[in-house]
Amino acid sequence: MEFDSKIKTIEWKNNTSKVIDQTKLPYEFKIADITTCEQMYNAIKNMIVRGAPAIGIAGAHGVALAALELSRKTGTKEDFLNKLNRKAEYLKSARPTAVNLMWAIDKQMKLVGETDCDIKTITEKLIKNGVKLENEDIEINKKIGEYGAQIVPKGAGILTHCNAGALATVGYGTALGVIRSAYAKDSTIKVFADETRPRQQGARLTTWELVQDGIPVTLITDGMCSYLMSKGMINMVVTGADRIAANGDSANKIGTYTVAIAAKYHNIPFYIAAPLSTIDISIESGDKIPIEERSHDEVTHINGERICAEGVNIINPGFDVTPNGLISGIITEKGILKPNYKNSIAQAMSIILR
Amino acid sequence: MEFDSKIKTIEWKNNTSKVIDQTKLPYEFKIADITTCEQMYNAIKNMIVRGAPAIGIAGAHGVALAALELSRKTGTKEDFLNKLNRKAEYLKSARPTAVNLMWAIDKQMKLVGETDCDIKTITEKLIKNGVKLENEDIEINKKIGEYGAQIVPKGAGILTHCNAGALATVGYGTALGVIRSAYAKDSTIKVFADETRPRQQGARLTTWELVQDGIPVTLITDGMCSYLMSKGMINMVVTGADRIAANGDSANKIGTYTVAIAAKYHNIPFYIAAPLSTIDISIESGDKIPIEERSHDEVTHINGERICAEGVNIINPGFDVTPNGLISGIITEKGILKPNYKNSIAQAMSIILR
Repeated sequence: MEFDSKIKTIEWKNNTSKVIDQTKLPYEFKIADITTCEQMYNAIKNMIVRGAPAIGIAGAHGVALAALELSRKTGTKEDFLNKLNRKAEYLKSARPTAVNLMWAIDKQMKLVGETDCDIKTITEKLIKNGVKLENEDIEINKKIGEYGAQIVPKGAGILTHCNAGALATVGYGTALGVIRSAYAKDSTIKVFADETRPRQQGARLTTWELVQDGIPVTLITDGMCSYLMSKGMINMVVTGADRIAANGDSANKIGTYTVAIAAKYHNIPFYIAAPLSTIDISIESGDKIPIEERSHDEVTHINGERICAEGVNIINPGFDVTPNGLISGIITEKGILKPNYKNSIAQAMSIILR
Repeated sequence: MEFDSKIKTIEWKNNTSKVIDQTKLPYEFKIADITTCEQMYNAIKNMIVRGAPAIGIAGAHGVALAALELSRKTGTKEDFLNKLNRKAEYLKSARPTAVNLMWAIDKQMKLVGETDCDIKTITEKLIKNGVKLENEDIEINKKIGEYGAQIVPKGAGILTHCNAGALATVGYGTALGVIRSAYAKDSTIKVFADETRPRQQGARLTTWELVQDGIPVTLITDGMCSYLMSKGMINMVVTGADRIAANGDSANKIGTYTVAIAAKYHNIPFYIAAPLSTIDISIESGDKIPIEERSHDEVTHINGERICAEGVNIINPGFDVTPNGLISGIITEKGILKPNYKNSIAQAMSIILR
């Protein structure tokens, strides 16, 4: 059963990538028009667009914008391809952890490498492929939602961390896709959203998009999860992922690992919901996933106001890695992968790589 | 070895209870002059003074203020005692979880019950006893610090949650007392402070008081603890407590239980540091400890600004209970209590109740 969500996070229209500016939510709904590769780099870096699947599509759009720009200048095809390659690498460097960015840009560049068309045709192909990936993302999320909804117990309390919603994808969402599909079948489920400090994507984005879609949601602070679990209020945890290693270890927003440990302690199933494009089979285990260190201001300030004493030290890892042993299943568009993940992941990836 | 801390959180002077206004920190250092029982009730309720041992002393001062007020009015001694009793009960209702409040008020009222002096003398006794409890609190904390420092490994990374510092006591602190004493012996220890949403006592108070005392501190968000533990950066956790049941189950600021679970998962010792006055032997186990539900604004707003969508549901339990099985030891002024806590607590309490 499919839920009708109104949110479209990123959309190609008239040679422009239109993205919901997520730095403004929940206070203001604003669409940012991205027309150059550099603007897209900054939009990804500054989290105007964020969430692993969404920044994948942003990367694909970014390559199309780069091609459009370069195609307007005179020069040889060789020159065009060299410059396009450099811009693709530049885009990839916007954020290091989510592998979908690299995956989507590589998809675009593979298409460039396989063609011997002229500059104009290459550019057209990149735009067309960007739109195709954009549309596929929603379809993938709906499949993830469908598979995930099958394992949600009747009336379950479901906890999610950060925002793996419509706003983290083109639309519908991964973890929130599961919740949307589950809610369409059973409106008695109870959704709990972790605030997710430091950037508060749970408080700012998850509450916003669920309220938009009329799905009741209870906001909690990050430390509360264990209390709720001990009271029997949580029956299942589902989060997104930014990169999944070949053995199932999953990098996701900082704090996810803490929730997974708390779930294990209370014997509550913990699921990851993510498209197969989030799986990086080149990485054997989670300790090889690069973890982005983000600005310390994210910890010391909220809404521009300092919340701690001057003179304090800060660390701000953007992500942590949940080891495969804490993960009950990985909900993908090809079904729910179960341990042993090395085998189930290899099998799933062989299908899409075939 | 004793550390020289400059902070005095609550102090009786000239018939006034002078308390550091903790709602203003870390932005402004302001002493609030509390001169009536009602003012003290509000100061406790609104967390101008907070922390289990500190609100104990605040309660004792509050009874003295009530006696002072009543002694200025004409009336019989019976009338005085009735009204004093009512004010004592009223003060106790300011916050439900921390037992030190009840403990200190009961101490004062026991003193009233045991005397047959006149109103003036009773009032003088209550003032004198309030000051005595105040001074004893610092001595108790220094003993807690001394015992605790003995088990801090050289160069250890120590994580604490909320503020169990000088600001949560009259001075020196319980968990931060351990850290102060450990730092006096070994300045290579590394202190990590959880932000502690929703009220951010870690970010606002713990960082402030450690910076004041020149002890380096790293602030982290609540979700980060497991990441740091997995990286070997945390060797020990120490927090305060608001009420400890006869079996060692310990209520403390919401989020403590999550940290304790994460510590257990990483095989890191988790200690509670608290005076024996925090132990409530009338309560068999933690599930009987009343948990205060606080204002939802604490979750939805930070510094007066909304941080989530409108229309979201909220729960805001002020405390959670860490079960005794997750606690490596309870550091008290009479030494470190170890499991089986039922026995070690009964033994320790029999000494002070003798």
